[in-house]
Amino acid sequence: MNNGKAVRPALVYLSAEALGGFPQQATPGAVAIELVHNFALVHDDIIDRDSFRRNRHTLWKKFGIGPALLTGDGLHILAIDTLLDPGTARARTAVGLLTRAMIATLHGQAHDMGFPHRPWSGPTAVTPEEYRQAAGAKTGALIACSAAIGAVLAGGGGTPRQVARFAAYGRHLGVAFQCTDDVIGLWGKPETAGKPVGSDLLEARKTLPIITALASGTPAAGRLLELLSHSEEGPAADDLPEALDLLEEASGRSAAEAQAEHHMTAAVQCLAALPISAAARDELHAMALYMTRRDR
Amino acid sequence: MNNGKAVRPALVYLSAEALGGFPQQATPGAVAIELVHNFALVHDDIIDRDSFRRNRHTLWKKFGIGPALLTGDGLHILAIDTLLDPGTARARTAVGLLTRAMIATLHGQAHDMGFPHRPWSGPTAVTPEEYRQAAGAKTGALIACSAAIGAVLAGGGGTPRQVARFAAYGRHLGVAFQCTDDVIGLWGKPETAGKPVGSDLLEARKTLPIITALASGTPAAGRLLELLSHSEEGPAADDLPEALDLLEEASGRSAAEAQAEHHMTAAVQCLAALPISAAARDELHAMALYMTRRDR
Repeated sequence: MNNGKAVRPALVYLSAEALGGFPQQATPGAVAIELVHNFALVHDDIIDRDSFRRNRHTLWKKFGIGPALLTGDGLHILAIDTLLDPGTARARTAVGLLTRAMIATLHGQAHDMGFPHRPWSGPTAVTPEEYRQAAGAKTGALIACSAAIGAVLAGGGGTPRQVARFAAYGRHLGVAFQCTDDVIGLWGKPETAGKPVGSDLLEARKTLPIITALASGTPAAGRLLELLSHSEEGPAADDLPEALDLLEEASGRSAAEAQAEHHMTAAVQCLAALPISAAARDELHAMALYMTRRDR
Repeated sequence: MNNGKAVRPALVYLSAEALGGFPQQATPGAVAIELVHNFALVHDDIIDRDSFRRNRHTLWKKFGIGPALLTGDGLHILAIDTLLDPGTARARTAVGLLTRAMIATLHGQAHDMGFPHRPWSGPTAVTPEEYRQAAGAKTGALIACSAAIGAVLAGGGGTPRQVARFAAYGRHLGVAFQCTDDVIGLWGKPETAGKPVGSDLLEARKTLPIITALASGTPAAGRLLELLSHSEEGPAADDLPEALDLLEEASGRSAAEAQAEHHMTAAVQCLAALPISAAARDELHAMALYMTRRDR
């Protein structure tokens, strides 16, 4: 995923519109969210030492760690500055939501950062539940915040209860999005995934399909563990086709897809109790489908 | 310097008190400023690849770039969150001052980051004036912000004119502080500088004494240029005593000390027009002296 389709600012606008807001009211929120998202990407790429994103060299890879780090810091502070700019009480509430989401995101990232050092199996292996919590924080918090900020900045301003409902919608959507992203990181076409087929496996990332497959206790899981333990760096490139087959056999793919489906449905259910038009509901539903569809 | 003596939060409290504020009113500002300062230090150490600070290993050196980068991001966002927390209009104004100061700081850092790639001499060498501008942005902006935020959070809240005067006091103080820091980076005792004598020279940093000495056009400047051009990395360790002598001979040290003095005096003059008690003025004056005194 990460195809730069600006789903987060789109969510800000959609939830603002759903509550009767004008686009202009939501713009500072949409801009701030996209700035924060890009700040997180730029710093994540440094942390993960990722060389490619969207089929291009990452910022640190091209210009060095210092300039990339500083660029991320700049995007971060510009986001706060942009959101705060109107100087209204509503803007202040929105900044509060954003800072809390960013703190949650950092918690998720910090948790996530420990994953590479954990073993593939045994009592200290990463569990699917742990993974979901980290994903909820790392990816869900900012997407939840996108929907919530839209609701805060809209027309008369959403009630706290409505804002919370938009946040819950966004949070489920975020987890579904992350599950889908994990499937794409293994089976996605290079042109849509922005990286080679199976790259998450070759880089020995502890993503949901892999963790779930290993936890399945099946013979396929046993063989997969052998391949993953080939070296400290992960499986051998030659073993990639077999490893991908084993992942499917041990239900790694189907479980991740089912998780995505589950959270997508939960997201849509959050919309039911909101006082929004059928058209707005349809748009938010379509957004959920768009973010988790599998034809990419 | 950088001795962790918390001069920035002290400034927040002093300016708040000068305008009749209670310490409790200034606390979110003091905490936020210190968090931001530490955020900047942690990220700066990554950018500059510095291994030591305050005679201890830097965070990235000890725990790796990823954890240090994330820690800096956390300090950054906690600063905003802390300052915003009271939810008052005054808190909003204070956050606005902080974000603007951080943007200025980033501009200064970005400028500064280009210095190592510039030659020691010739038309594209870093000029003393350019250096002062970068120092004003990099160090002055946050110290100016410390004094201004104290004034904003104080008692009845300073008028915009008063806040601007406190900011000017802090800005001059910041430049004076940076000039003093540069002298310490060359001639400071290791126990107070937190790094070996002459380390800025050995690391070929383009600090004020070095830039000014080279720009002096004296024979000492010519010989200094030879020593600095020993290799791409800077002078040979054996040449350090001679290089330090040449720096003094070419007025590098005295010019930096005069700059510090000049900005210290300008800082104190900013206090004259403020409606504050003689005791408060004395405290702010003492603070200026403390930040630029040379017995370290």
